[in-house]
Amino acid sequence: MTRIESVDVHDVRFPTAAAGDGSDAINRGDYSATYVELRTDTTHTGAGFTFTNGRGNEITCAAVRALAHHVTGRTLAELNADPVGFHRSLTADPQLRWLGPEKGVIAMATGALVNAVWDLRAKEAGVPLWRLLAEMPTAELVACVDFHHIGDALTPAEATEILDKGQAGMAERLAELARDGFPSYTTSVGWLGYPDDKVRGLARAAYAQGWRAMKMKVGGDLDDDVRRATLIRAEIGPDALLMMDANQVWDVEEAITAMGRLAALDPYWIEEPTHADDVLGHARINRAVAGLTGGRCRVATGEVAANRVIFKQLLQAEAIGVMQVDACRVAGVNEVLAELLMAAKFGVPVCPHAGGVGLCELVQHLAVFDYLRVGTSLDGRMVEYVDHLHEHFEDPVRTSGGRYLLPDRPGYSATMRTASIAEFSFPDGPAWR
Amino acid sequence: MTRIESVDVHDVRFPTAAAGDGSDAINRGDYSATYVELRTDTTHTGAGFTFTNGRGNEITCAAVRALAHHVTGRTLAELNADPVGFHRSLTADPQLRWLGPEKGVIAMATGALVNAVWDLRAKEAGVPLWRLLAEMPTAELVACVDFHHIGDALTPAEATEILDKGQAGMAERLAELARDGFPSYTTSVGWLGYPDDKVRGLARAAYAQGWRAMKMKVGGDLDDDVRRATLIRAEIGPDALLMMDANQVWDVEEAITAMGRLAALDPYWIEEPTHADDVLGHARINRAVAGLTGGRCRVATGEVAANRVIFKQLLQAEAIGVMQVDACRVAGVNEVLAELLMAAKFGVPVCPHAGGVGLCELVQHLAVFDYLRVGTSLDGRMVEYVDHLHEHFEDPVRTSGGRYLLPDRPGYSATMRTASIAEFSFPDGPAWR
Repeated sequence: MTRIESVDVHDVRFPTAAAGDGSDAINRGDYSATYVELRTDTTHTGAGFTFTNGRGNEITCAAVRALAHHVTGRTLAELNADPVGFHRSLTADPQLRWLGPEKGVIAMATGALVNAVWDLRAKEAGVPLWRLLAEMPTAELVACVDFHHIGDALTPAEATEILDKGQAGMAERLAELARDGFPSYTTSVGWLGYPDDKVRGLARAAYAQGWRAMKMKVGGDLDDDVRRATLIRAEIGPDALLMMDANQVWDVEEAITAMGRLAALDPYWIEEPTHADDVLGHARINRAVAGLTGGRCRVATGEVAANRVIFKQLLQAEAIGVMQVDACRVAGVNEVLAELLMAAKFGVPVCPHAGGVGLCELVQHLAVFDYLRVGTSLDGRMVEYVDHLHEHFEDPVRTSGGRYLLPDRPGYSATMRTASIAEFSFPDGPAWR
Repeated sequence: MTRIESVDVHDVRFPTAAAGDGSDAINRGDYSATYVELRTDTTHTGAGFTFTNGRGNEITCAAVRALAHHVTGRTLAELNADPVGFHRSLTADPQLRWLGPEKGVIAMATGALVNAVWDLRAKEAGVPLWRLLAEMPTAELVACVDFHHIGDALTPAEATEILDKGQAGMAERLAELARDGFPSYTTSVGWLGYPDDKVRGLARAAYAQGWRAMKMKVGGDLDDDVRRATLIRAEIGPDALLMMDANQVWDVEEAITAMGRLAALDPYWIEEPTHADDVLGHARINRAVAGLTGGRCRVATGEVAANRVIFKQLLQAEAIGVMQVDACRVAGVNEVLAELLMAAKFGVPVCPHAGGVGLCELVQHLAVFDYLRVGTSLDGRMVEYVDHLHEHFEDPVRTSGGRYLLPDRPGYSATMRTASIAEFSFPDGPAWR
């Protein structure tokens, strides 16, 4: 009977801004984590985090502290027995809900705590999170999903049907992943802060390493975007996939105009073409880019989608051709389950958002589970890969030839190395003094 | 040349939860304010705040501190010379934006700071905020609006046309308001936490005081909602307006079902029938309630609408018949300007959200400005009124016969009494020790 005795919160920040890593049309940050440790009365510690962009990480830390009383003192058995009740204690707290609701700082803090509980649960079970989820009985999985406010898009009966179906052929799919790994793409080639020569060299190197899908940032000066896209396309040839990411910088009309020019470089998707909250705008852009490219290009979004209600509408409005769930932006594994199930129902592939601090470590579990039990196809599925900061995790991702290798250690791969926490704690760690 | 020398932040909380004031289907809080004072090199202090629901007020305080460097050390002249630049320094901070973007905690903190700058500006001008705005040249007002991400719904040229037109007849409208006050409605009669006898007595008393529009909370047990609505309707007669507020508790289908029964009580609007982010859901409900009531009832929402992008979509999707802007939820006066202008373009009346701590004090300025210069009609316009906590403000609202009297003191009526700040500071004020 594991009991959670305390919640420790660490403000961990890596000084990445100076190098231009992670720079895009709208963000330039010091990649950071609001890192949570659940201390228990067993030898296991639950680890979870949410990713932030530097300044303000103390705000998400404060939010974790404000929510921690819903976790402290509770047993895993209790939380598992009433997962929606536990989830709503965090998402519908009668005082804290006002600060979202279910979005931004308070959702991210919820995500850190909920993810830590799942990490603990998988460690106690002695299996990686993807396996815990994939092998869970359907009724137990469905009981983890809060259908509130998404009932018009997904019912428990529909979720049950999807998860029951997902049991067929699971052993074969698992054998395939164990052999080949999970497809991925790299974002490390084209940050806006990198000069052309660096972009060209990185694209060439990535291609040589086996990557056949790469993402570049757009949304700067349009002539620059076209020039950079042209030089990347020249390096990777006509067959490799080239994705573009505008990080919300465009207005709706502006996005359509820009894609009119960028379409010549045969983009596979345009990511975050406008404001993350603009469901109707994404729908218009999705129709327009399909028209501009004869259906070859689609809209992708999700890393900043606030919650399942926004994802629901993106699907209902046919606004996206790719759903990019984030492991920490929304309220943790439970909410991601709802999103994976809705994507499956609407027939939209999920390509999780990663990068930042530790997001690759987390989302590999979600993608593997999705393939094994929910989406059950690799068609159009790729996990984002960014080659930053993995060395700070105890169970870092491993890739080979442009694919993620199956994680095999117990938990959610969320545990940060003790030395890294100490070194990069803000503001008192040696890295910041 | 007023210079802002420092930003003081106070965590002020009023212990309202115990009495059931402000209780509804989803919130039960200690009404609180993240209260901001801009200290300057003149005798004026800019006051602003955002409203929260108790626990977590320390999180919005932390967010104000994280944003304060965009304000400290700057002169009013600088900020006025480039209002969109100033606004984006807060809303598009390259590290803090990730925590929203433009929603929740970080937007609310931005609202507190931006509102404080406007309070300071109006005090320096020696006029109430509504007058400062109403008498501002059109070009200067348009320059305060950030059209980013709303260009597909409102252009600067359209805003200019609305504000130019609004100059005609302004003197007559002002004379009318000075004589009659601004229409309002009361929410104090039907909180969910109140027993039937108290609700009946409050409805009767409000009617006797001259109120002809009242709002009740729904979203509890449906039989209870119907019973409470019936007893209020019996007290106020068939001609007074009865509004209902579900505070987001229903799913889309559930809202339509509930309104099928509540329609018998002739509701004027159903407020927040479902999740605040659900634009498409509100659109469906709006069509359904119009059908159920022959067009007599409409959907109202906005107190938790995250930003101008959500409001834009609510208007584009014909999801609302009443727009309820909040003075603090979004990024302050500048963003509210965008929302008022969009509402005018789409022909939807604005009835600002109030209550909480000091929201009535703020929104009266917005409603008066809207009537004088933007919407230019009182048709369907009412400001919410809740009879709580006004005594803590130096320039509290004054009402008579169910109408707000024009505020006449310089500023945004945001200044809290020093003694109240001291008494209710959390956790060290005498009220909390």
